[in-house]
Amino acid sequence: MDTHQRQFDRDLAELKKKLIHMAAVAETMIDQSVQALVSRDQGLVEPLPHEEEEVNRLQIEIDENAVMLIATHQPVAGDLRFLLAASKISGELERIGDLAVNITENVSVLVRQPPLKPLVDIPRMTEIARGMIRDSLNALVRDDVLLAQSVITTDNQVDALKDQVLRELLTYMMSDPQTIERALMLILVARHLERAADHATNIAEDVIYQVQGRDVRHPLTPREKK
Amino acid sequence: MDTHQRQFDRDLAELKKKLIHMAAVAETMIDQSVQALVSRDQGLVEPLPHEEEEVNRLQIEIDENAVMLIATHQPVAGDLRFLLAASKISGELERIGDLAVNITENVSVLVRQPPLKPLVDIPRMTEIARGMIRDSLNALVRDDVLLAQSVITTDNQVDALKDQVLRELLTYMMSDPQTIERALMLILVARHLERAADHATNIAEDVIYQVQGRDVRHPLTPREKK
Repeated sequence: MDTHQRQFDRDLAELKKKLIHMAAVAETMIDQSVQALVSRDQGLVEPLPHEEEEVNRLQIEIDENAVMLIATHQPVAGDLRFLLAASKISGELERIGDLAVNITENVSVLVRQPPLKPLVDIPRMTEIARGMIRDSLNALVRDDVLLAQSVITTDNQVDALKDQVLRELLTYMMSDPQTIERALMLILVARHLERAADHATNIAEDVIYQVQGRDVRHPLTPREKK
Repeated sequence: MDTHQRQFDRDLAELKKKLIHMAAVAETMIDQSVQALVSRDQGLVEPLPHEEEEVNRLQIEIDENAVMLIATHQPVAGDLRFLLAASKISGELERIGDLAVNITENVSVLVRQPPLKPLVDIPRMTEIARGMIRDSLNALVRDDVLLAQSVITTDNQVDALKDQVLRELLTYMMSDPQTIERALMLILVARHLERAADHATNIAEDVIYQVQGRDVRHPLTPREKK
């Protein structure tokens, strides 16, 4: 193995570390935004603006590193696919960070009013979505197609919980107009969490594409759109 | 100019044509889904499943063409950035197609019930979002940074209309619980349109990045998150 190749391998390993770190920050942002809702403590979202900046900075860095590595090393198919996947995955993670910020906007409305109901499904959705983010990145660094596939399957649970939240909150809204604004904000929180899980699913699909060189994003039997 | 370079230029032109075509299909899908709502005619969404398949197929094709061109031509910085942008833009367009499908789901609920109110802001949002999709792609093929910047500015209008729709429909919901389900569906349609405009904005940002080689996605004075 020549020096050039060794340097390239080191750069690839560095890029993977950056992606893992970026995913950890995005996952933390989702956690903090929902924790602020559950514990009705707005102080918990104070780190968010700083974390959002970090996620944005990492996206640009990872993108630029990927372009630079493609331009300077002219990598072969497998490494080229990984670098293209890295660029896409950083985009997905950046959007997860944005969704956490969206959640804090709904939460800031919710904590100013009395709690509507004990929250069960939303914390559950959050746990599942966080696990999906973690697993999709673990699948990337380990080239683990099975783990990536399990992320895609788990997305159905999040979709089902979101539908359940919607149905339950619609009944609140219909029986008491006083609850409408709060119920709507909770519906939007559930939708943001569902979209965060969708981004983890996109990452898992990118991982499978990158490992197998075949596309699972649009299988012959289409997944149900939510 | 050698044969190899001429072939590469032809392949790039072909890829641009595919992106333009994909954008036209995605824009049509948004139009049809909202037209079905406005004219209360579900027949208008009949072409959607076929168009969704076409958009999905084009995304895979554009992605594979971009990987192949990078691998076989080892393009220099400018062309490399274009190919990476093409891959990202096809992802944005695919999501716009998905949003059109989401809109049809809300519309199928809405057309089964009496109209809640004459629709003004939602058709207006649709027109603006469609123009943004068209302009972002025109900016790409013409390397037109000013046009791309105008797309980014126009996004504020869509955000403002979405907020207006939300406020108006909240008052409907609060004054008459009978309107809650329909109002919620219209709020979701407005959100899907706002996200379609966000994807056009992402495309415009990719175009500026690709032309100028600098990143406008996270400017120093952050745009307001919606």
